Amino acid sequence: MNDDTYISLAHGNGGRFMRELIESVFQRHLGNPALDVQADAVRLQLGDAHCLFTTDGFTVQPLEFPGGDIGSLAVHGTTNDLAVAGAEPKYLSLNAFIEEGLELALLDRLIASLAAAARDIGVQVVAGDTKVLRRGEGGGLYLATTGIGLALPGPVLGLDRIRPGDAVLVSGPVGDHGIAVMLAREQFGLRGDLRSDAASVLPLTRAARDLDGLRFMRDPTRGGLASVCHEISRATGLGVRLREAALPVRDPVRSVCEMLGYDPLYLACEGRVVAVVAPAQAEALLARWQALPEGSEACLIGTLEAGADRVLLETGIGGERLLEELEDDPLPRIC
Amino acid sequence: MNDDTYISLAHGNGGRFMRELIESVFQRHLGNPALDVQADAVRLQLGDAHCLFTTDGFTVQPLEFPGGDIGSLAVHGTTNDLAVAGAEPKYLSLNAFIEEGLELALLDRLIASLAAAARDIGVQVVAGDTKVLRRGEGGGLYLATTGIGLALPGPVLGLDRIRPGDAVLVSGPVGDHGIAVMLAREQFGLRGDLRSDAASVLPLTRAARDLDGLRFMRDPTRGGLASVCHEISRATGLGVRLREAALPVRDPVRSVCEMLGYDPLYLACEGRVVAVVAPAQAEALLARWQALPEGSEACLIGTLEAGADRVLLETGIGGERLLEELEDDPLPRIC
Repeated sequence: MNDDTYISLAHGNGGRFMRELIESVFQRHLGNPALDVQADAVRLQLGDAHCLFTTDGFTVQPLEFPGGDIGSLAVHGTTNDLAVAGAEPKYLSLNAFIEEGLELALLDRLIASLAAAARDIGVQVVAGDTKVLRRGEGGGLYLATTGIGLALPGPVLGLDRIRPGDAVLVSGPVGDHGIAVMLAREQFGLRGDLRSDAASVLPLTRAARDLDGLRFMRDPTRGGLASVCHEISRATGLGVRLREAALPVRDPVRSVCEMLGYDPLYLACEGRVVAVVAPAQAEALLARWQALPEGSEACLIGTLEAGADRVLLETGIGGERLLEELEDDPLPRIC
Repeated sequence: MNDDTYISLAHGNGGRFMRELIESVFQRHLGNPALDVQADAVRLQLGDAHCLFTTDGFTVQPLEFPGGDIGSLAVHGTTNDLAVAGAEPKYLSLNAFIEEGLELALLDRLIASLAAAARDIGVQVVAGDTKVLRRGEGGGLYLATTGIGLALPGPVLGLDRIRPGDAVLVSGPVGDHGIAVMLAREQFGLRGDLRSDAASVLPLTRAARDLDGLRFMRDPTRGGLASVCHEISRATGLGVRLREAALPVRDPVRSVCEMLGYDPLYLACEGRVVAVVAPAQAEALLARWQALPEGSEACLIGTLEAGADRVLLETGIGGERLLEELEDDPLPRIC
């Protein structure tokens, strides 16, 4: 139902329809010099403090899945956006939309998990609000978190810093979150012991922050690695060339994708970082990441090239495949 | 179903069940020195800037009602929390949870209204996120806004500043929002031309801010004026004595309440301020408010008294009625 009259699930998938909805409705009405719908977090000057500010909503289903739950995800999702923008997260606000009939013991577990995730990375939840939705008007629990961070010293990061020849790295295997959550739904009769990669990326971004050749970081969530590459390509006018053989994808993710016809490059991660870095420092960043438990499987996966703004995959057999912008939503309520 | 096992609508009404849920789940797990679940907004020191930070969720049904809509409400609700905390709102973030099937033209209207409300009071929406909910897992549209403001010069405000003998003022008639939204639902076969009071309270809070006898301000939303008085009483250990004859309630609100058995003192407002002020400055604040279009119907409604922590209503015929803490939810999805 993408007929421009009604909202469809594809308007929420991180791909083209979502981008067009944000541009045609939200950006058009709300546009102001500080609002950058392409940025993970916005820079705000408050007194003499260089702050970063970001917000994220969470609707993942089921509410608990192997490797995480909506509570820890609501902390990691928003603080990761601050981290990849080059900030140290400090404060969070929390909105809870709770459906009538939700078990209180489950709510308690989810908020305990949220609190533990916040404690682990040293952020404080300092403001909150709860609303209760009538039975049948919610999906158990939706959360929204808004974060404030302080900018760390280091080079200014941004899509506009990217140059032809720059290297693209990813901090670990892609698609684990998407497939782990999908398996937890048990809707295709599939099971597995894959765990979500949902986690804080702060160790990774801290390790990268003082490299003066660091251009840009983003955590590939909805729409996956391919959608991050499309954002880079669209914003810079450059091509992103990825090497299929270099892309880290776990076997169970690959198997499920083959069975169901998904492409792991479009699946959500919740604890990975994509970084663009000057070619001379690519190996240095790779070594720093691989020295961390969070980045032990980091890979150098591609390069930026002048010419057309497209995302190309060099396949194993020497061919090339154009990666299109995501259209349909393979997995709604994945984050 | 208030059996402590499942979430019920009463957990969202601004009364006792909501307070207990927040204390027993959210405050228990998230508690930290900066989190004050009784405050409208939290004070954060960012560099040399004294900031205030607050968040609010919006689920009002219908999405458009006489005098406002969920878009403008999402701006006024959050900026009003900053305003009563003594701040000038500067920045907002916006989360939209959109149900599959929502008409795009309606979404466009609501976001245009949100943008206009933000422009009118000089705040910028600088960060946002959208999620799409499957048909049947949402109520059309839920919004959450988080606000950052800068503290204005003036006395520190807080429940702990309140003293016996202080005066209680309200800036205008109570219950208009609750009844206007209820009438817009047409569920009781009632109609009327009452408009919601939903609006920015900034003109009112700015006018009060430099009175050195100003102790505390709050906007009475869910749970209404009576619930604000209960919060004051519980936090201070003092009694709040209200004079029924002085309470501003519009005739249509009174009529609907009499028909349906509601008490206007427990109905939501979205553009009123309750202020507690030293007795010597009560008339001054009243005069300042009455000089504004937003406060032309302001009234001096009561006083704080030592003794029991209770909320008493002096009735017209010289009697007294104890106002209990709100238990059941008269009107879910009112804000």
